[in-house]
Amino acid sequence: MTEPRQPAPAGTPPQALIGGTTRLYAVLGDPVDQVQSPGLLNPLFARLGIDAVLVPAHVRPADLETAVRGLQRVGNLDGLFVTVPHKAAAALLADRRSPTVEITGSANALRREPDGSWLAENFDGSGFVSGLVRAGHRPNGARVTLVGAGGAGSAIAAALLDAGVHRLTLTDPDTPRLTALVDRLAVHWPGRVRAAGRPPLSDSDIAVNATPLGLRPDDPLPFAPDALPPGAVVADIIMKPRATRLLREAAAQGLHAHHGHHMLTGQLDSYRAFFGLRAP
Amino acid sequence: MTEPRQPAPAGTPPQALIGGTTRLYAVLGDPVDQVQSPGLLNPLFARLGIDAVLVPAHVRPADLETAVRGLQRVGNLDGLFVTVPHKAAAALLADRRSPTVEITGSANALRREPDGSWLAENFDGSGFVSGLVRAGHRPNGARVTLVGAGGAGSAIAAALLDAGVHRLTLTDPDTPRLTALVDRLAVHWPGRVRAAGRPPLSDSDIAVNATPLGLRPDDPLPFAPDALPPGAVVADIIMKPRATRLLREAAAQGLHAHHGHHMLTGQLDSYRAFFGLRAP
Repeated sequence: MTEPRQPAPAGTPPQALIGGTTRLYAVLGDPVDQVQSPGLLNPLFARLGIDAVLVPAHVRPADLETAVRGLQRVGNLDGLFVTVPHKAAAALLADRRSPTVEITGSANALRREPDGSWLAENFDGSGFVSGLVRAGHRPNGARVTLVGAGGAGSAIAAALLDAGVHRLTLTDPDTPRLTALVDRLAVHWPGRVRAAGRPPLSDSDIAVNATPLGLRPDDPLPFAPDALPPGAVVADIIMKPRATRLLREAAAQGLHAHHGHHMLTGQLDSYRAFFGLRAP
Repeated sequence: MTEPRQPAPAGTPPQALIGGTTRLYAVLGDPVDQVQSPGLLNPLFARLGIDAVLVPAHVRPADLETAVRGLQRVGNLDGLFVTVPHKAAAALLADRRSPTVEITGSANALRREPDGSWLAENFDGSGFVSGLVRAGHRPNGARVTLVGAGGAGSAIAAALLDAGVHRLTLTDPDTPRLTALVDRLAVHWPGRVRAAGRPPLSDSDIAVNATPLGLRPDDPLPFAPDALPPGAVVADIIMKPRATRLLREAAAQGLHAHHGHHMLTGQLDSYRAFFGLRAP
């Protein structure tokens, strides 16, 4: 005698209809105010008529394992998205890791498998490259400098090498982290990746900020765009603010400013496939 | 350089605008498909212009502590609602318990306090009594039979005694649970509460089902309404289906059928006060 479930009228955002049958996704970050994924995924759920919602979860690093273990016990929670600073730690909280996660040591999505185990995947890199290509900046054959060897930087480095960059130079103030990443990448792409103490900007076609510098208005620049040659692309992965100081200075110098949201847009197709998001 | 937050247009459901700044509430149950609280609270958030959402969380009893400990580490999660079968266990997962929770051993809401600790409260009883009074069925001076000494039954028993019932008779197949509850209640309301092996229906003005019997269409009746005197009230706390077999049979016999949703409606004011839900 349970009441039949009423299908939502076409175009109704399912978030307006959240009820006991709604499936959950959460995006974990610290901070989390800036995350853009709910604004992308929830309209996608609405368009597809999926009774699901993606909510933000502010989790501090010391609380990550407890929070993830708890969320994994929520039976109607089908997946977790992971952002700064949790991408490396989250990779270890899954039962299995995709090849990209194994190479980068970094995950930005965890999915509950049919057997109840959890699989970690990383879409930062493929999303970044898709966004770059869509914007007309082909990485194939390019000389690329990447600043930041953290979670996002690792994934972007692997994807750029996979996309055929001629030479990838990585910098990071954390030298052990930097050399460990370069060593892991060099196993798969020998002779094309190297570490540097300072970014070789005058000799780069594309320069990428994969650090958090720019999230706050008083952050220093991750690198000086005026050292780049004319026609170079300056890419940021920060999504909020949309125009970081780095990108504003790059644009003011006539360089190509490539905004962070391109990476997230490029990830949408990958997310859809990974989480099986299709119209019921 | 963070973008200023745009206020939502009046009447916009904030669930349609879920973003990184959204505050979270979750309702925990097993099953959880039937919960009505998201359908009540989310429209309230919308009316008040509060950037928050209540989502369902399906948690099995064996997973409750892990899930709650995890959810408590989610910094933008301000409270938990708790339903069957977790109300007793949830009371123990708070740092402090309200007097009603202490008496009943049962909680249906946990709130994060300003110091970061968690307070457990129970609104089942006060919500049930409010709903009864609003529907014109005054419990003051009445002879009441209550079937089910679990979490909801305990809270309703305390609230009915507090509201001045003449005599409250409790039944439950779990005799130790039943006698323990009657003993705790008798400390506060001596001489007015008793346990019984069978509900004294022929001698009752109000009979209440506080068991889960009726959630499934093939459940047996919690008690036989045809044993009640003319003019009696038959109340159910089950919200889905709205008209349980018990209430349908009571109505067919000309008795007053009091639906479960009255209890939840009566709880809304209490929830608003407890969680400080007011327009920003």
